[in-house]
Amino acid sequence: MIVVLAGGVGAARFLRGAVRVVPPTEITVVGNTGDDIGIYGVHVSPDLDIVTYMLADVFDEQRGFGLRGDTHMVMDALAELGEPTWFALGDRDLAVCAARTGRLAAGESLSAITADIAKRFGVRTRILPMTDDPVHTRVRVLDGDTEREIHFQEYWVRHRAGLPAREVRLHGASSATPAPGVLNAIEEAEAVLLAPSNPVVSIGTILAVPGIRDAIAATPAPVVGVSPVIGGRVVRGMADKLLPVLGAEVSARGVAGLYADLLDGFVIDDADAATASDIAALGIRVETTATLMHSPEDAARLAKVALTLAGRA
Amino acid sequence: MIVVLAGGVGAARFLRGAVRVVPPTEITVVGNTGDDIGIYGVHVSPDLDIVTYMLADVFDEQRGFGLRGDTHMVMDALAELGEPTWFALGDRDLAVCAARTGRLAAGESLSAITADIAKRFGVRTRILPMTDDPVHTRVRVLDGDTEREIHFQEYWVRHRAGLPAREVRLHGASSATPAPGVLNAIEEAEAVLLAPSNPVVSIGTILAVPGIRDAIAATPAPVVGVSPVIGGRVVRGMADKLLPVLGAEVSARGVAGLYADLLDGFVIDDADAATASDIAALGIRVETTATLMHSPEDAARLAKVALTLAGRA
Repeated sequence: MIVVLAGGVGAARFLRGAVRVVPPTEITVVGNTGDDIGIYGVHVSPDLDIVTYMLADVFDEQRGFGLRGDTHMVMDALAELGEPTWFALGDRDLAVCAARTGRLAAGESLSAITADIAKRFGVRTRILPMTDDPVHTRVRVLDGDTEREIHFQEYWVRHRAGLPAREVRLHGASSATPAPGVLNAIEEAEAVLLAPSNPVVSIGTILAVPGIRDAIAATPAPVVGVSPVIGGRVVRGMADKLLPVLGAEVSARGVAGLYADLLDGFVIDDADAATASDIAALGIRVETTATLMHSPEDAARLAKVALTLAGRA
Repeated sequence: MIVVLAGGVGAARFLRGAVRVVPPTEITVVGNTGDDIGIYGVHVSPDLDIVTYMLADVFDEQRGFGLRGDTHMVMDALAELGEPTWFALGDRDLAVCAARTGRLAAGESLSAITADIAKRFGVRTRILPMTDDPVHTRVRVLDGDTEREIHFQEYWVRHRAGLPAREVRLHGASSATPAPGVLNAIEEAEAVLLAPSNPVVSIGTILAVPGIRDAIAATPAPVVGVSPVIGGRVVRGMADKLLPVLGAEVSARGVAGLYADLLDGFVIDDADAATASDIAALGIRVETTATLMHSPEDAARLAKVALTLAGRA
């Protein structure tokens, strides 16, 4: 069994490649839920859904979220009502969230619901939320002259990361418990992969749930990461804005530094080959390759490099 | 100012007539919220919405709920996901509920939200929920050999009132407070009308909020009801199943008995003229007329009879 720590689109693309290298049923995804948001009354789990939709091959690659071919009747009606609609949810996407919300209200756990949604979408890979407890990633931003704290989605989706970030706070993380199966999956894993996701608000959030970082540090299985930074730039997302908040360099080397206590191996882009020796100096085996994933084939190739570095492919 | 206590479709039809007899801005509706239900994650206020949609002339008369011409993308998607979909909500209807839910979660009151939704639909009549506090009408039913308690909507919409009802319980009613403006509107009203709604789970629920029944009993203004029962049958709904639970007869006389301490006048159908003397014996002035509302014109005629009995038309 391979465990993959995963954020949103980058991780989902990587996973779509990974399931072409190893059987989908031999992968357990531990997904970030710090980005979850309650909006329009429903509980949205963006990262879990992106992974589910991508693995089910129904993800809307053009918009970068939601379901391909979805309609937008509810959002249009909300706009007509004068409600804020900055967080776009298609109708079928909203139905998934509504189902989740109704079942959470009825006392079901997020992990049970997530498994069930994945099953209904025909996904055979196991998808676990990092925790069933509420964790909220919030960003302290400078808005004009004043500092205020806003939900991560407000920072990212509403303001397009346009407000200077001062601090990232993971509310609830320190008292959260890993979801059922998470620690066990890590302990029994033959390899643990850190997907090319945001090291601050995706992988960093997962690692902030007490017990998860320790379990990964303790596992005898190889731990291999894939850099989300290529030549000092992020492929998508806003890690370039948030890495400096942690005092980390926006580079493959900067990311490797955040995972130094965990990594046995790290896959970086050819563009960053010059920094390989710096990363190797941290005691990490480095592999350089083309890390951009334009297609499922690219993703499979990248996954194969990471799994080979972990001795599993 | 005229105050009208209102349930769902019957009340909404009556109100559509009333606003043709007196200016819409001179009516304050006090709406039942005991039927409110949290489902698919959103807060549905069926009676408030039915009144709003009817007064805005966007109500779907054919289905008997929701918005005319609404689409059903979300419900279709929920069904595809294998979720229960017995409580149908069109997409635009769902958007109204999603807006309400998001604003409730942000700390706004149901009365403020209700006023705002009415305004956005162009409704000039004031619509107040009976209370901003949660009140849940639940029905104790016999299901096979066992008694169990279910939400009113489950009893009515899911089971079509097909399970024998043993008891109606208004959870939260005794500790609820009338919404801001309700008592004041009753105290200052020139007339209080009880719309032709279910006496048990619509008008009865409103009257169960502490302070409302007393205010109506105390007002010097005339109080006039309109019977929802015609010739021993209800026009729509399930009052025929629930009146006996209270030990009341399914008749205009039975309904009048429930309101006897409040009513100065009662409008009954021509079909029930034979019972007029029984009702008059309770000290209530009785007017008989055709009470079926096939059209807005019928409704206006009925409203005029009620308002005339109240000395206001």
